Amino acid sequence: MKTRKASDSLAIATHHVLPNDTNNLNNLFGGRLMEWMDVIGAICAHRHCRRVVVTATVNHVAFHHPIPYGSIVTLEAKVSRAFSTSMEVFIDVYVEDPVSGERMKSNEAIYTFVAVDQNGSPLPVPQLVPETDLEKERYEGALRRKQLALILAGKMKPDEATELKALFGA
Amino acid sequence: MKTRKASDSLAIATHHVLPNDTNNLNNLFGGRLMEWMDVIGAICAHRHCRRVVVTATVNHVAFHHPIPYGSIVTLEAKVSRAFSTSMEVFIDVYVEDPVSGERMKSNEAIYTFVAVDQNGSPLPVPQLVPETDLEKERYEGALRRKQLALILAGKMKPDEATELKALFGA
Amino acid sequence: MKTRKASDSLAIATHHVLPNDTNNLNNLFGGRLMEWMDVIGAICAHRHCRRVVVTATVNHVAFHHPIPYGSIVTLEAKVSRAFSTSMEVFIDVYVEDPVSGERMKSNEAIYTFVAVDQNGSPLPVPQLVPETDLEKERYEGALRRKQLALILAGKMKPDEATELKALFGA
Amino acid sequence: MKTRKASDSLAIATHHVLPNDTNNLNNLFGGRLMEWMDVIGAICAHRHCRRVVVTATVNHVAFHHPIPYGSIVTLEAKVSRAFSTSMEVFIDVYVEDPVSGERMKSNEAIYTFVAVDQNGSPLPVPQLVPETDLEKERYEGALRRKQLALILAGKMKPDEATELKALFGA
Amino acid sequence: MKTRKASDSLAIATHHVLPNDTNNLNNLFGGRLMEWMDVIGAICAHRHCRRVVVTATVNHVAFHHPIPYGSIVTLEAKVSRAFSTSMEVFIDVYVEDPVSGERMKSNEAIYTFVAVDQNGSPLPVPQLVPETDLEKERYEGALRRKQLALILAGKMKPDEATELKALFGA
Amino acid sequence: MKTRKASDSLAIATHHVLPNDTNNLNNLFGGRLMEWMDVIGAICAHRHCRRVVVTATVNHVAFHHPIPYGSIVTLEAKVSRAFSTSMEVFIDVYVEDPVSGERMKSNEAIYTFVAVDQNGSPLPVPQLVPETDLEKERYEGALRRKQLALILAGKMKPDEATELKALFGA
Repeated sequence: MKTRKASDSLAIATHHVLPNDTNNLNNLFGGRLMEWMDVIGAICAHRHCRRVVVTATVNHVAFHHPIPYGSIVTLEAKVSRAFSTSMEVFIDVYVEDPVSGERMKSNEAIYTFVAVDQNGSPLPVPQLVPETDLEKERYEGALRRKQLALILAGKMKPDEATELKALFGA
Repeated sequence: MKTRKASDSLAIATHHVLPNDTNNLNNLFGGRLMEWMDVIGAICAHRHCRRVVVTATVNHVAFHHPIPYGSIVTLEAKVSRAFSTSMEVFIDVYVEDPVSGERMKSNEAIYTFVAVDQNGSPLPVPQLVPETDLEKERYEGALRRKQLALILAGKMKPDEATELKALFGA
Repeated sequence: MKTRKASDSLAIATHHVLPNDTNNLNNLFGGRLMEWMDVIGAICAHRHCRRVVVTATVNHVAFHHPIPYGSIVTLEAKVSRAFSTSMEVFIDVYVEDPVSGERMKSNEAIYTFVAVDQNGSPLPVPQLVPETDLEKERYEGALRRKQLALILAGKMKPDEATELKALFGA
Repeated sequence: MKTRKASDSLAIATHHVLPNDTNNLNNLFGGRLMEWMDVIGAICAHRHCRRVVVTATVNHVAFHHPIPYGSIVTLEAKVSRAFSTSMEVFIDVYVEDPVSGERMKSNEAIYTFVAVDQNGSPLPVPQLVPETDLEKERYEGALRRKQLALILAGKMKPDEATELKALFGA
Repeated sequence: MKTRKASDSLAIATHHVLPNDTNNLNNLFGGRLMEWMDVIGAICAHRHCRRVVVTATVNHVAFHHPIPYGSIVTLEAKVSRAFSTSMEVFIDVYVEDPVSGERMKSNEAIYTFVAVDQNGSPLPVPQLVPETDLEKERYEGALRRKQLALILAGKMKPDEATELKALFGA
Repeated sequence: MKTRKASDSLAIATHHVLPNDTNNLNNLFGGRLMEWMDVIGAICAHRHCRRVVVTATVNHVAFHHPIPYGSIVTLEAKVSRAFSTSMEVFIDVYVEDPVSGERMKSNEAIYTFVAVDQNGSPLPVPQLVPETDLEKERYEGALRRKQLALILAGKMKPDEATELKALFGA
């Protein structure tokens, strides 16, 4: 199975925040944004492996900046690393200033998708070759995140998570 | 500000999986479930503090069991711990067997909401008093999760996270 | 076929009134509430009989209290009586005060559902055993309502409707 | 306030049954049809009185014929009688045979709407003058239905409902 | 295959402009109106030929009048001419004044639909017989529009378009 | 007012065809695609002028290739020419092969948007400078299309449309 570049998987979605996407403060509500991220993330993972994919996990997501009604929101998703049957996808969310057009990064999320056959059984996926500095940085971090996820799910002993142990000075 | 019981915040949503909630495998897609979790989680947090609330963070979420089209999905949200202006909410997701009616737990997610005023500034919220064993266990874990989130966000040094250091044998 | 308790069928849905659920006065429009009642009523009837169910009739529904945009609306559905293949379901609708959290009953509706097979043919359903006073009162009234429905549909002669005749002093 | 003809209020909506309008049997679900009936009924009542209107009551509705996915459904709404501030509206629902094009009546519902000002206070509406035989028959029945509704709501004593007493031979 | 009258194909849809149908100026956005026109146009074409139909082309559409939130919008679609396997449909859009009830024509669009079998292959359709002056005028123009479409698509030489050449004095 | 490059206005939307986007043949229905094109076209025009924009006209659109349920559809919109207050936008629609990932162009549409103030009055927009061959070709054609639109709307005499007359050999 041949490898793929991160840039091959780039998927972009641009949304206009409509009334039904807003909460009582007239800002985009978090659940809608997570739905949009899931859809574009799945398209991105599909572009990497050309299989049907399903959402496996969503990493910690933080909402720092309210996104007001009427905003133009752009989501850019790229595979950051492929494992045997799963793909980690970074989704960067940008909002643009209506007057200057300047893009501000408002969110960043990390989803994991798995390639599956008709019965939902996992299928192997091509490995990813990162090219830019950011792609390489995210590629490196993916292993650490996978270990953390395995520990949190009780499927790996903290002792075995070499990368994480270093983080806590152990 | 008086305290509140976890059970006071219980919010329940029951959904029927419709065609537009499904992916290409005819199962509920992850993004829709996260949207449903966000909406019922926000109602739950609102019941605890009686303020307008906004989503602050979503913890690691895992999707283990496909939920087929036509399923009845029940979400139960309860505040697990309140901090000064934020509330951690557990959302348990159940699917019931169409023949036996037996409920199977399919997902568990942890969202954090913040109470805000008209300008989005945080407002203090009542503290939570856990009662059942499960409520107490989740209450205890909330501090550990908050530390982890702060570290991941670069707002706390791993050294200061006493609870987490123990986890990695440091 | 064994009997079931009314409480076994309890189904709860909690909704947040979004912009697209409102009429020109910014209140929840009646048609949306009836849609929500139908969905949760069907889930309730399904829980009673564990069959696919379809809506058969909707009793007289009245809308007394406008429910403003942003409200939290809770629907609670319970089977009130089972006949041979149909189930009468009561749906109580509550709105909570955003400041005090007090629940106010805003609507009450009575739907009837029928259990059907793949071809839409009716299937027998378990009988219901009411327990609380309210459950018993609604159980008693169900027969009267069924007679009225049959008369209005021209399928029963007013003369045969013993319960109703008493009501009109005949 | 001048009178209006029933035909002046005619409002027609034609829908195509999409996937998300269907239940597990691939037929239009009752709640969606009631939503459609509410929207077109409100437009019809508005055409009669040229005021903002809100749904007051829905009469007994029966669902006899399943309406399959892909059907063309036509709703025709006409005011049947106007009272001081309310209007009774008949909504006839037709489904057409995809091959012959023949229209079959599948449902009939009776909604009542009230004209209101900005604060939700009722406003007077023009009286209705029925013309065709069917319009006259429905006009006559409206009073009987109003009495029944008042009795069921506990706002009229059965004794005072002259029309209804006759029905039950009292 | 027998002919059909234009009036046989009349299809009417009446919509209430909801929040999610509006742009940042609180007016109906163009894309939603085009969606509504497509749906009612397809129903109209289906009524003419009683086959499954798909959208083939949309003629030049202009949006002159903003349609504010809360408006009642009526679409009337009628087949203007049938060719061998395609049907040209005129869709007239009206908005009514909320106080006077007067209808104002706000848009006019011309869609073309093709009757197809299960594999998407075109099927013959009945010819149309126009009756009123307007129907005849639109029937005549249909040929000119078809020639223009063929030229723009590069499938006809301008030289062969007799009707169009006259228009440009050639 | 300074000029802008065509590439500055590029707006991309990637959609996954869901059940409710399909017609009876399980293909994306035309009206939904036109809605998507309108939304991304408006975002594109907004990026060019940084004003609120409204849809003015839609040019002839043709639907040649059915797009099946589950497809990934990418829309790319770019301003092709700016006039005093209006912008012509080309929207190219691509569908990708699920196995090979190869992109096939499935549609091309031309929308015109106008920049407006709060009252809907037109506002001047920056002029466009085309760079690539395709951008230049589309820039040239825009004038011809504008003339044709004006003639069809009865606002220009065919005699004055120099470019078009040439087309018909006049």
